[in-house]
Amino acid sequence: MPRYKLVIEYDGTPFAGWQRQANALSVQQVVEEAIRRFAGEDVRIQCAGRTDAGVHATGQVAHMDLSRTWRTDTIRDALNAHLKPRPVAILWAEEVPDRFNARMSAVKRHYRYRILNRRAPPAIERNAVWHVPWPLDAGRMEEAAQVLVGRHDFTTFRASECQAASPVRTLDRFDVRREGDLITVEASARSFLHSQVRSMVGTIVQAGNGRWSVEDVRRALDARRRSACAPLAPPQGLALIGVDYPDELPDRRAEHAVDHDLQGQSEQGDRARQG
Amino acid sequence: MPRYKLVIEYDGTPFAGWQRQANALSVQQVVEEAIRRFAGEDVRIQCAGRTDAGVHATGQVAHMDLSRTWRTDTIRDALNAHLKPRPVAILWAEEVPDRFNARMSAVKRHYRYRILNRRAPPAIERNAVWHVPWPLDAGRMEEAAQVLVGRHDFTTFRASECQAASPVRTLDRFDVRREGDLITVEASARSFLHSQVRSMVGTIVQAGNGRWSVEDVRRALDARRRSACAPLAPPQGLALIGVDYPDELPDRRAEHAVDHDLQGQSEQGDRARQG
Repeated sequence: MPRYKLVIEYDGTPFAGWQRQANALSVQQVVEEAIRRFAGEDVRIQCAGRTDAGVHATGQVAHMDLSRTWRTDTIRDALNAHLKPRPVAILWAEEVPDRFNARMSAVKRHYRYRILNRRAPPAIERNAVWHVPWPLDAGRMEEAAQVLVGRHDFTTFRASECQAASPVRTLDRFDVRREGDLITVEASARSFLHSQVRSMVGTIVQAGNGRWSVEDVRRALDARRRSACAPLAPPQGLALIGVDYPDELPDRRAEHAVDHDLQGQSEQGDRARQG
Repeated sequence: MPRYKLVIEYDGTPFAGWQRQANALSVQQVVEEAIRRFAGEDVRIQCAGRTDAGVHATGQVAHMDLSRTWRTDTIRDALNAHLKPRPVAILWAEEVPDRFNARMSAVKRHYRYRILNRRAPPAIERNAVWHVPWPLDAGRMEEAAQVLVGRHDFTTFRASECQAASPVRTLDRFDVRREGDLITVEASARSFLHSQVRSMVGTIVQAGNGRWSVEDVRRALDARRRSACAPLAPPQGLALIGVDYPDELPDRRAEHAVDHDLQGQSEQGDRARQG
């Protein structure tokens, strides 16, 4: 059975998240239904990072097995035709070796969080930013973010319902930059705990608005208690923007260089939940 | 009576355009109703560039006269409160001299047009891009765009219903750049004819897809016939991103430097319609 990798973009606004649910519409259900209409097969797809309700993706990755071989252009175009009018698009389809697993083979995941930092509410992209109307110091946010980079026990920044066996993760990158009213935060790691990115963004925003010092952020990390975390940043600012795979599992579309972070190998066993 | 300048952002999707209409919702109506609810006055506002249905703005400018003086922060915040839930936001309010006129005082207008150039349809920002699924050569588009820069009779690129007295305009800038799948076109001029930007974008896309040569674009310009124009680019890709005013009418928020283009002074008499 040929295995296919799909790169998927979606607007998370109308969905209860990636994962199938009994009584709410999920991205997974919509894609699987498009596959059934296209290929006539009931297929379960697995993704690299299960996003929560309202969280977007510009580079989600999933894999599926079909019983026959299709041209990958046909897969992409036919799925997109069947996905209409849902805000989900297949950007790329590619045949991959059987050992490729969208979740288990991933060596790095990249998330972006966007904050609109101005007094006026957003009129455009309302569902794609967190509107913070009080002034934020992006330099202080960046300073606080660097406290979290590295290999740590991220219990403070992990949802209570997180199912990962270990709270230890290696955060490779957590960058903050401001362009005008827009503050963009980017986070990269082999894998993230459930709600980790939104927890970390909520916390560095407390440093940015001056309520917390950078030292307070360090204390929150060291506390290893969920109650030490600042309020979660809302879902609509978050997007999964890319997933890297090893060179021998080629990803011609990847915007980010593949990084063989052997150090993080042990973290891979845990389920990679949305950050 | 104090005069106020407003900088306005809106998502044009649900609107029949800027200008008030008898049987359809316009941005102007929504803003004027917010002013009435806030200040208790029936005010008519005038804008710098009347956008068509579905066209957006991140930097529309309008002016209004109120019978009493208000703090500008109060104007901005109160109008934004009354504008909810419409996708319209007042970014900036400022008291200006009586001689300031949002339309007549403007010395330059800036539009941006965005093309999503990939096979897959947009799942995100569907109402903010023109989806062109066949390959476009942005370099050729840029070459074709430069043919249109300068002072020309733009009859070819002017809607038949355009009310401007003269079809002559000076196009100061018409730039094309590609970043991944996104092609961004930016146009700057003292003023534009009705549908000029969408007409010009539709035409350079014909050069980008290889149907027209750069010489064909020049011939279309020289023809000075509306029928020589390529099909209009659709409205949702277009946004009015900024308006410049002379230094003596300060605009602290302007993203673009004020440019005293005296050459274009005579063009100012015509009504500046949406590009």
